[in-house]
Amino acid sequence: MPGLSTSPPLPAPRACAAPLRSWVQSANRDDADFPLAHLPLCVFRPAGTDAIARIGVGIGQEVFDLRRAWRLGLLDTLAPELRRACAAPSLNALFAAGRAASRALRAALTTLLQEGTPDQERSASCLLPQSQAAFDLPAQVGDYTDFLASYNHAHNVGSLYRPDNPVLPNFSSLPVAYHGRASSLVVTDEPVCRPQGQFRAAPQDTATVFGPSRKLDFEMELGVFVGPGNARGHAIAVDEADAHIAGFCVLNDWSARDLQEWESQPLGPFLGKNFATTLSPWVVSPEALEPYRVEIARPASPLLKDYLRHAPSSRRASFEIVTEVRLCTQRMRAQGQAAQLIATALFSRDIVWSFAQMIAHHTVNGCTLRPGDLLGSGTVSGPTPGSEGCLLELTRGGRAPLTLANGETRTYLQDGDEIVLTAFCARPGLPRIGFGECRGRIVPALARD
Amino acid sequence: MPGLSTSPPLPAPRACAAPLRSWVQSANRDDADFPLAHLPLCVFRPAGTDAIARIGVGIGQEVFDLRRAWRLGLLDTLAPELRRACAAPSLNALFAAGRAASRALRAALTTLLQEGTPDQERSASCLLPQSQAAFDLPAQVGDYTDFLASYNHAHNVGSLYRPDNPVLPNFSSLPVAYHGRASSLVVTDEPVCRPQGQFRAAPQDTATVFGPSRKLDFEMELGVFVGPGNARGHAIAVDEADAHIAGFCVLNDWSARDLQEWESQPLGPFLGKNFATTLSPWVVSPEALEPYRVEIARPASPLLKDYLRHAPSSRRASFEIVTEVRLCTQRMRAQGQAAQLIATALFSRDIVWSFAQMIAHHTVNGCTLRPGDLLGSGTVSGPTPGSEGCLLELTRGGRAPLTLANGETRTYLQDGDEIVLTAFCARPGLPRIGFGECRGRIVPALARD
Repeated sequence: MPGLSTSPPLPAPRACAAPLRSWVQSANRDDADFPLAHLPLCVFRPAGTDAIARIGVGIGQEVFDLRRAWRLGLLDTLAPELRRACAAPSLNALFAAGRAASRALRAALTTLLQEGTPDQERSASCLLPQSQAAFDLPAQVGDYTDFLASYNHAHNVGSLYRPDNPVLPNFSSLPVAYHGRASSLVVTDEPVCRPQGQFRAAPQDTATVFGPSRKLDFEMELGVFVGPGNARGHAIAVDEADAHIAGFCVLNDWSARDLQEWESQPLGPFLGKNFATTLSPWVVSPEALEPYRVEIARPASPLLKDYLRHAPSSRRASFEIVTEVRLCTQRMRAQGQAAQLIATALFSRDIVWSFAQMIAHHTVNGCTLRPGDLLGSGTVSGPTPGSEGCLLELTRGGRAPLTLANGETRTYLQDGDEIVLTAFCARPGLPRIGFGECRGRIVPALARD
Repeated sequence: MPGLSTSPPLPAPRACAAPLRSWVQSANRDDADFPLAHLPLCVFRPAGTDAIARIGVGIGQEVFDLRRAWRLGLLDTLAPELRRACAAPSLNALFAAGRAASRALRAALTTLLQEGTPDQERSASCLLPQSQAAFDLPAQVGDYTDFLASYNHAHNVGSLYRPDNPVLPNFSSLPVAYHGRASSLVVTDEPVCRPQGQFRAAPQDTATVFGPSRKLDFEMELGVFVGPGNARGHAIAVDEADAHIAGFCVLNDWSARDLQEWESQPLGPFLGKNFATTLSPWVVSPEALEPYRVEIARPASPLLKDYLRHAPSSRRASFEIVTEVRLCTQRMRAQGQAAQLIATALFSRDIVWSFAQMIAHHTVNGCTLRPGDLLGSGTVSGPTPGSEGCLLELTRGGRAPLTLANGETRTYLQDGDEIVLTAFCARPGLPRIGFGECRGRIVPALARD
């Protein structure tokens, strides 16, 4: 079994205390995913209510209600239009306001949530345990684009379908991408209905069958939400693209491989992807990730076109983010077992195009990005067994089933299987930055009406 | 030259008077595109003002302002929620309300606009000449999907790129599609900026160049706006899909063939398409098209999967719509010449999947359609010279340039070229139904900032 538990490709990260302490005690634990240095944003409502959605900020085990904070006057130091954006039911207006506005909000929240703040009592009334929050999508996504930016993923998948020519020549020339479907986006914990469609039951078949997908897969990706957009016709330069990144999330680009195999030529994936794409609810800010900024993995090729070329001073355009995939089967749940780690990878090692390069490429033809648009990195797959970000790779196209700790085996996902994706940054001396969970359970295909 | 002017594939249509006369006299002319039997919807504002956008109805040479009609109480016979939808700044709410609501509105408008109506004076105050209207996109489009549903187009284009295997086996099994980009959508008359990008200057080149596209093309398509959507996981049955069609428009899926050729494997078109997609401003209702409803072109193959199979009673799922492409070059404009017809085709003959089949396929995996979503038919290309819906086909990949009446030649579009797409239904004894114009002029690529 190419399981990560036996061959971790990375040294075990060590979590550290955040330098600033919060009066929210759960934020000060060494293993806290959401320390005071983090402050990820989300959109939520108190679970079980039909209260309107509001923006929240993760702190320890709590979510801090920005709408309530606005009502209580706790955000009065902010500019009026920024205050209004904080009271909105989605993050689009905040994203549109840009990085300076986000940093102003971040500074205000840091003040409110740190030990010794004079506003602790009123601020405490804005907290809700995360376990009592129901999350919405963080933003209304106008368009969702998915890239193919892991060389390992391109190679592993290409080897299955085109053994003689696994990685196509354009891969090294531009960040390959396709348009996903915005309506497919759901937030963590939304059940994923097994898609039905046409496929060939065996690769050599000429006839197709119709039915529930037999090759249902996940894809571990990171996502970026677009901040301020661009005007039609105006490209965003690669070294200015950071100003257009509002934040990061974890993304599961569920894939029905059998549907995808049959439909994808000549126009790319369609029904094999657009039945569901699950997002984690938290938007991780570039500021929180800043200590983990590292050089992009790709060497600066002289063949690279200028519009994709980072200036030497901006080559630190990637982030040392560990990704993790866990699987929990129905039987594991029934027996009270925790989800099992089946893959882990390292974003900065395994994704060879920076999000800045993706943005520069996406807009070089004049295409408009709008605030709240979503970019997926493509599957994050590493070079070693157990670092592959999907079952298609982990099981070599189904030929090498995974054997789980309880003896169950998997090629593709079965009904009842739950996939839990997460990501984190951790390094000695730095605050741990967790991305939260992107979780989805497969439910059987619906009978056709 | 494969010009349509010399070999029309269709008998010249003859326009007829509408059975009901309107007090708007321009609607009663035999050649009126917008007779009383038509009543297409749009979103507009008086040109040169910053008035808020409002819904309009085309009648003769005029547009009837629904927002003003609502204020004047002219729509008081309609249900309150339908009245509210009529006063909205986009058609999404009307589309969501479904066909019964649209028919109720249509009946009310027919009464208001026909000769002898008691409300003629107040109704006349709601008219604005179409020449004084500035159009918006008819709806906020959540997702835009483009199909490949003309066998001729698939064959002609496939022959250029894969001479041995022009039409892939999935073409006859399902309506192939890809996700376009909603942010690319613009309404008629918006200039189209020549996209820049990477491409191979010659097919055998291994290196690519960067610059303005040298193979800029149009694609003549029809579009459908989605009415009521579906719940996630719930497929729409092919014979119930008509209830989800709000109306039709003309669509120009501008394509940079050189960008598209280099980027499209393995994930399909991206920057070659997403710089602009132009729509005509008018939404033609299924009711207006009803007299032109005809059988779908495709024989009922026993191999067709059940979910795509029309019941015998619903095989009249296509429409006898003539499409026309005109080109006006900068020189023609300077010399006062009208745009020249360069292609015409017949939707019901040349598109082999019905929109109902496209909807059934799109949702069979549980994918959600939302009100206002847009589906493109794919390029409408006929079987004969001069019926091809794009320059890639008309010029055989650039090898057989078009010679225009003024002696100019074209392989692909030059800066200053304007493409005017239109469509109409016309048959003796039936009212003529015009689709209005989908017009776009190419402007030079912007210098990079």
